[in-house]
Amino acid sequence: MYSFKNDYSEGAHPQILNALIETNLVQEDGYGEDQYSLQAAKLLREKMNDDEVAIHFLTGGTQANLTAIAAFLRPHEAAVAAATGHINVHETGAIEATGHKVLAVPSGKDGKLTPTGIQSLLDAHPDEHMVKPKLVYISDTTENGAVYTKKELEALNAFCKNRHLYLYLDGARLGSALTSPANDLQLSDLPKLVDAFYVGGTKNGALIGEALVICNDALKDDFRFIMKQRGAMLAKGRLTGIQFLVLFRDNLFFDLAAHANAMALKLSNAIQEAGYAFLTPPVSNQIFPILPHSLLDTLHQQFHFFDWEKIDHEHSAARLVTSWATKEEAIDAFIASLKEKVTR
Amino acid sequence: MYSFKNDYSEGAHPQILNALIETNLVQEDGYGEDQYSLQAAKLLREKMNDDEVAIHFLTGGTQANLTAIAAFLRPHEAAVAAATGHINVHETGAIEATGHKVLAVPSGKDGKLTPTGIQSLLDAHPDEHMVKPKLVYISDTTENGAVYTKKELEALNAFCKNRHLYLYLDGARLGSALTSPANDLQLSDLPKLVDAFYVGGTKNGALIGEALVICNDALKDDFRFIMKQRGAMLAKGRLTGIQFLVLFRDNLFFDLAAHANAMALKLSNAIQEAGYAFLTPPVSNQIFPILPHSLLDTLHQQFHFFDWEKIDHEHSAARLVTSWATKEEAIDAFIASLKEKVTR
Amino acid sequence: MYSFKNDYSEGAHPQILNALIETNLVQEDGYGEDQYSLQAAKLLREKMNDDEVAIHFLTGGTQANLTAIAAFLRPHEAAVAAATGHINVHETGAIEATGHKVLAVPSGKDGKLTPTGIQSLLDAHPDEHMVKPKLVYISDTTENGAVYTKKELEALNAFCKNRHLYLYLDGARLGSALTSPANDLQLSDLPKLVDAFYVGGTKNGALIGEALVICNDALKDDFRFIMKQRGAMLAKGRLTGIQFLVLFRDNLFFDLAAHANAMALKLSNAIQEAGYAFLTPPVSNQIFPILPHSLLDTLHQQFHFFDWEKIDHEHSAARLVTSWATKEEAIDAFIASLKEKVTR
Amino acid sequence: MYSFKNDYSEGAHPQILNALIETNLVQEDGYGEDQYSLQAAKLLREKMNDDEVAIHFLTGGTQANLTAIAAFLRPHEAAVAAATGHINVHETGAIEATGHKVLAVPSGKDGKLTPTGIQSLLDAHPDEHMVKPKLVYISDTTENGAVYTKKELEALNAFCKNRHLYLYLDGARLGSALTSPANDLQLSDLPKLVDAFYVGGTKNGALIGEALVICNDALKDDFRFIMKQRGAMLAKGRLTGIQFLVLFRDNLFFDLAAHANAMALKLSNAIQEAGYAFLTPPVSNQIFPILPHSLLDTLHQQFHFFDWEKIDHEHSAARLVTSWATKEEAIDAFIASLKEKVTR
Repeated sequence: MYSFKNDYSEGAHPQILNALIETNLVQEDGYGEDQYSLQAAKLLREKMNDDEVAIHFLTGGTQANLTAIAAFLRPHEAAVAAATGHINVHETGAIEATGHKVLAVPSGKDGKLTPTGIQSLLDAHPDEHMVKPKLVYISDTTENGAVYTKKELEALNAFCKNRHLYLYLDGARLGSALTSPANDLQLSDLPKLVDAFYVGGTKNGALIGEALVICNDALKDDFRFIMKQRGAMLAKGRLTGIQFLVLFRDNLFFDLAAHANAMALKLSNAIQEAGYAFLTPPVSNQIFPILPHSLLDTLHQQFHFFDWEKIDHEHSAARLVTSWATKEEAIDAFIASLKEKVTR
Repeated sequence: MYSFKNDYSEGAHPQILNALIETNLVQEDGYGEDQYSLQAAKLLREKMNDDEVAIHFLTGGTQANLTAIAAFLRPHEAAVAAATGHINVHETGAIEATGHKVLAVPSGKDGKLTPTGIQSLLDAHPDEHMVKPKLVYISDTTENGAVYTKKELEALNAFCKNRHLYLYLDGARLGSALTSPANDLQLSDLPKLVDAFYVGGTKNGALIGEALVICNDALKDDFRFIMKQRGAMLAKGRLTGIQFLVLFRDNLFFDLAAHANAMALKLSNAIQEAGYAFLTPPVSNQIFPILPHSLLDTLHQQFHFFDWEKIDHEHSAARLVTSWATKEEAIDAFIASLKEKVTR
Repeated sequence: MYSFKNDYSEGAHPQILNALIETNLVQEDGYGEDQYSLQAAKLLREKMNDDEVAIHFLTGGTQANLTAIAAFLRPHEAAVAAATGHINVHETGAIEATGHKVLAVPSGKDGKLTPTGIQSLLDAHPDEHMVKPKLVYISDTTENGAVYTKKELEALNAFCKNRHLYLYLDGARLGSALTSPANDLQLSDLPKLVDAFYVGGTKNGALIGEALVICNDALKDDFRFIMKQRGAMLAKGRLTGIQFLVLFRDNLFFDLAAHANAMALKLSNAIQEAGYAFLTPPVSNQIFPILPHSLLDTLHQQFHFFDWEKIDHEHSAARLVTSWATKEEAIDAFIASLKEKVTR
Repeated sequence: MYSFKNDYSEGAHPQILNALIETNLVQEDGYGEDQYSLQAAKLLREKMNDDEVAIHFLTGGTQANLTAIAAFLRPHEAAVAAATGHINVHETGAIEATGHKVLAVPSGKDGKLTPTGIQSLLDAHPDEHMVKPKLVYISDTTENGAVYTKKELEALNAFCKNRHLYLYLDGARLGSALTSPANDLQLSDLPKLVDAFYVGGTKNGALIGEALVICNDALKDDFRFIMKQRGAMLAKGRLTGIQFLVLFRDNLFFDLAAHANAMALKLSNAIQEAGYAFLTPPVSNQIFPILPHSLLDTLHQQFHFFDWEKIDHEHSAARLVTSWATKEEAIDAFIASLKEKVTR
């Protein structure tokens, strides 16, 4: 049974494994001070046209989020997220465990934040009897597969600057976002538009690894102390450094994400042709078709994927996720099953 | 220049890299629920002759320590460590960042804790104006390369049970400890002697990974929640699972550690023959010869290693670390340099 | 200008001040081990017909809540509160600062929690990627002045027991609740119905002080350690002990609350007679009449009180708070102003 | 039996109780925004000849310390204290519970810190694998009754400025320090010499209350948020405001401390005349005479006081504490008992 459950079902792209083998016996310093990590950071700065951003490699999204937020905020300051935001729901209170409240803004189906939504929350937090909203957390793609446009991000950036808020972007699926047909942002736009973000490796072809990029000078000091304190500094830092070197030395990071998106697009086109709608427009490697339960039952016999949300008595939205490793035959097989069931 | 700076200068043992390649495209569930992680946990339980221990894979020592201690203690309870203990000195306050004080017991050159030392500390903490010592943290090997005997560990176990203390063993270098000439413990002894411990992979041939073993039933509940909360649960949990499967399916874990110890023994024998003493008896893969500064200067020109502690105006103790990857030629070259300098 | 802004505008009931004077030079032990605190705890246990409850005196509601919740929960466990709950909104993230997420349940105008609301939240937290709801936080009276009935509390108690949740009651205004016309609970019912609660002194005639009552044996251990750690243990613990002794040696606690309620009732009756509705039924010492802006403007010239919530373009709900110290002349004056304005 | 156990055995100075009575029914705003608190802060700024210091009233020493340190430090920064320092030993890990390590410097019998001692600790904390020492915590008087001279404090101030460390002074017994014969500091010197300190009320005639003074502008922002978050903001903030107004409107604060010191001096002179030595020179309201066990046994039958430290098989140091409330007759009785026993 082929799985569309997530984009971390397989290991890593072969070029990454090869690089690990080739470098295996080279002796390097530990804790992120190896040549590979230093080169990967330099390379990322080049790709972003920004010599000043600080770059640190961590092992996962929750770890990146909690380490960054713990480093950036004072105790009474809170993070603002969409109600569906990963830090609000799916990190087992990791942010609160560092002492900070996560303030949830009701969000639409797309999971995006807007200045209006954040402003409502600011209005409700006027004084010292309440936490002080200080960091706005967004994800691109969002938890619901949506993509921010450049205009939307510029509006958030202007709003946050004006309200003295930090803007932080969770890029667990940034590859998919930047190669989406709905996207008009470039990687090099981000340092100008957010205070910090991370480039997700784990869900785009790496074994493990996220590259945190700190753009705002005021947030850079002593970050390695905080990483070490949170258990986020690897003795063999080379492991993440080498992977990001491979992902960015040519265009691999973008190629892999583009493949995932292309597979999702093929799938969503077929689903649309079969007459089905989507919970949110299918623009990235996570798509949410609304399908009848009878069809879902049939598909579940052949494929692994999650049911996401019940829509009515006869329909639910499924979540189908593609990745750098998704085989086109699997997509074709899924489409065939769908069509067969529909036409019967 | 060859490096004896640490045991994490290289990547991973080739068998591990091969296993990553062989399994690379097999689709698996995430977050430690993949078949490899489940099999590795089963295998470790078999090797320990204990069906009941809970096993979780984490990515580093600091992370394992902070996650375990956060899970095990109530807010007012403290960890007790040797003054030289890793959690007391070299984890950037990771334990305190989870809210718990680390109480330091003065320790000898070997870095070991004894019931007497712990009792003094208990005596000094009689009431609720002070924290409550609750978890005893030891390392095997210690930060100074010493090894606990079975008798010593039994004494600590009896003492801790009697005083209602948990005994936790940091096994970052457990491989080296269990294959040391000074050792009479077996891996399968540990579940009977401590409440929890971890088996270090990173410093014994893995790319990354530590296997936390929770022996005391009272400490097992909901540990995966705490892992997730601390950013210690990998999306691609297979990465650590596969590695421990390789390390323990045959005898690789012990073979690699035995090699590291053999290399250190060869080195220490030669140093002893050349007439030099050691800060602590050389019994594991970290040795601390006391050498004249002139000799150190010469050796530093050919090899990377750390000076550890100044002894007097003319001598310092160096720290030389061998590993699974240490080449015998490098040992021979070091010995040759040493002898050449000495005989001149 | 007379103030109806809150129930902590004045000092303390004269009997309390007298007791402080009478006992002033008696030498006592510190940190809550004085005879007054011990006697007050004994007295409270008698009033509750429960020899086993543990009683601790703290200095304020936020402190009581954060100390109790920090003592009761493991790191991944969360508190469940109404969205309007004090710990969710008005304690500057005090609970999160101890590491725990507060999960908000949408609540009606009355600010009460129900089993149905809590069950929805449990359903949304099925696994270790999310925090584990463990403690249900309610207030009596609620932040909106409502009062729990015995039947409602029994239902919550049964639900929580069944779901292995702790039930915790914030009694900042418990005096007003227990003497409300809407109430059918007695103080001695509470130890059977909740796992812990506190009896609010500060808002019912004391200078300072809340009596935390821990009913569930499993939550009693080492609470004094946690108090000390959170800065909640007073050197002169006598200060809170003496006050609770005075409040409960006769019936003063209930008499003072009954006076506050009577004053609020007189006020709400007059407001109702004048033809105005309330945001929530006026049953305790906080009432929320919905008044035209023109009338509010007039009243604000003579009295201090807070506007609570805008209802429509012409009306807002005001919050009027009475207390043990409220003078009936002030109530009469308010009513006179109201009537004068209305009849003109 | 008269008690010399501590300086918080009685209630408050009568002038304070009178002021509470006189102001009792005046309606005031809550949470420290009452007129008394505002006036008391203004008055303290005048006494310090400093218009810019920020002043906040808290309820106890542990609370003041933990709130200040939580407000001042980033997560990886640590407090430096004498090994005997209150935050290191007697606050049940309150600082660690806010996430910060306390680094202990071995101190002499007097409990003072020196630049040399702090420098050793800085030398041992060179990089991000260790916490970053950032705040130096001292007490005046120290836990052992010693008093800092102006020169000593100037040296610490210069050292801390040079090393970018904050200097924080715990003034639980600042009154006794400033009126000690060993003292040459004035209250108005402190804002120039430390970054923050608190003026202890609880141990010098108040029922409850410490006035935190933040001198360094960089540490002032949003302190009320942190107070509220830590449960340190009283609804009836007037309680502490009124007390400090009374303590400082004339010279009461200093008069009370001078009385305590005078009583201790009378006691220590008699003890010296009787031929006994002291653990540390008796210069404040805590004195530590070294007495034979037989004499201690006799005195314990008539007076309450703590044995502090065993000196040898026949002697222990006792701790005798005087206060604003100490009666001279009690001192005379103690001296009489001592002499009687000695001459027999």
